[in-house]
Amino acid sequence: MPSEAKQKMIQSRRRPLILVTNDDGITAPGIRALTKAMDALGDVVVVAPADEQSAVGHSITLDRPIRVKDYNFGGELSHVHALAITGTPCDCMKLALHELMHRKPDLAVSGINMGSNIAINVIYSGTISAATESSVNGIDSIAFSLDSKDPNADFIPAGNYAKIIAQKVLRSQLPTGVVLSANIPAIPEHEINGIQVTRQARSRWQEGFVGRTDPSNKQYYWYRGVLNILDDSPDTDNQSVEDGYVSVTPLQYDRTSYGCLDVLRTWRWADAKDQSFLK
Amino acid sequence: MPSEAKQKMIQSRRRPLILVTNDDGITAPGIRALTKAMDALGDVVVVAPADEQSAVGHSITLDRPIRVKDYNFGGELSHVHALAITGTPCDCMKLALHELMHRKPDLAVSGINMGSNIAINVIYSGTISAATESSVNGIDSIAFSLDSKDPNADFIPAGNYAKIIAQKVLRSQLPTGVVLSANIPAIPEHEINGIQVTRQARSRWQEGFVGRTDPSNKQYYWYRGVLNILDDSPDTDNQSVEDGYVSVTPLQYDRTSYGCLDVLRTWRWADAKDQSFLK
Repeated sequence: MPSEAKQKMIQSRRRPLILVTNDDGITAPGIRALTKAMDALGDVVVVAPADEQSAVGHSITLDRPIRVKDYNFGGELSHVHALAITGTPCDCMKLALHELMHRKPDLAVSGINMGSNIAINVIYSGTISAATESSVNGIDSIAFSLDSKDPNADFIPAGNYAKIIAQKVLRSQLPTGVVLSANIPAIPEHEINGIQVTRQARSRWQEGFVGRTDPSNKQYYWYRGVLNILDDSPDTDNQSVEDGYVSVTPLQYDRTSYGCLDVLRTWRWADAKDQSFLK
Repeated sequence: MPSEAKQKMIQSRRRPLILVTNDDGITAPGIRALTKAMDALGDVVVVAPADEQSAVGHSITLDRPIRVKDYNFGGELSHVHALAITGTPCDCMKLALHELMHRKPDLAVSGINMGSNIAINVIYSGTISAATESSVNGIDSIAFSLDSKDPNADFIPAGNYAKIIAQKVLRSQLPTGVVLSANIPAIPEHEINGIQVTRQARSRWQEGFVGRTDPSNKQYYWYRGVLNILDDSPDTDNQSVEDGYVSVTPLQYDRTSYGCLDVLRTWRWADAKDQSFLK
């Protein structure tokens, strides 16, 4: 990392220090909108992937080195300290927190993702994984996603709601082990009905693959799928966004199914040793 | 996919049909041991990454096509239908379930991973993500990991315990939304004390990066870190393995923090709209 950039990282201690990342890459419109929103709340450091990293989930880079480059958003954000790295959203958080920043941030935010991250999609989302990673590191963290895949989508209302939610978290502190995922409807700001606290909707991907043949006559597949929501309860992330609310879902990273521990303990595991099941 | 291989996939319906994958790649010793163990229980189909995919988490491949190639384990496993794919463990499960297999398997297993997947490491593990993916698709699923990074580790005891656990699940059916993660100690089989149902230990990575300079005088980073266990309760995955037990942890993929919903609903979100927080 250039020492000049390292110098820049010495932050003032009076304003909140906010770390920003995403999974669409540092040049995406959503991270610009989020950076602008956070710039109004505190001192901002951006450490984001150089390239798009959608659907990378919680992957980390172990098999190749990670490089860091200065980045400048230009215009009204040219004062913001930004670094582009050759890695995943989780790499960004790890590298920022343990190598690039000179003190622990007060808040970490990820997004604003182009496309919602609701229901089962939570487990695939690089945006949410980045926020999870900083939460694991003891930092209050929020993932933001806009419910639109339109490259010309207006991120300004989402940025304004990101500011409101971030401000609330800076004031109130999140419970331990919990990260927030906010999904914002892609509608004009005056049509947004407010903020709702939700749970993940039950859903299932209707998977599909498109098989094609290359010029050498070898077959290959493209993944595609359609998300089916199996749950129309008004307290779900999906329904909330459909109803014109900003959905805020608390997510935990402890995946232990506590409710299931006792059930499994009643299973007589040793019995399985008898081979009668085998024909 | 070659039509000959497709033909091979038409499975007998009398024995359980078991799908096998991993994240260390199809040539790793652990998947061979797991395939051998499952071959004693039913008809086995292996769909695994062509190359190592450790720490890829729940990533899926969207930006490039996926290719499928026949693979033969040789020797005593030369009759097993195996396919190597150019993708992640999650891709393997999606492609197997929705394109390559002609009926839904009765069980999906992933591993045997070289190295344990305990405590917070659950969120990074490709082995567990693969089993989670098949569980999301409604199939009873188990991830297996051996607590050793030794390339010459003995996978036979782990394979035998994989058989016991798989047999139990085939008989008993898992609760909805729950996948099992089994961690097996790397000790002689007669020293293993039995099977324990556990929860994830609280832990934290003590992160670190090694900064180096390349021949062009540019800096780059390698990730490294040390896992600190912050929890020595005997009901944890980590302690159980240390005590010589096979640890079986039920994991859920719904990440909603239900306990936190009510707390967050008491937050007065609208208040955050006032700008007094800004200096």
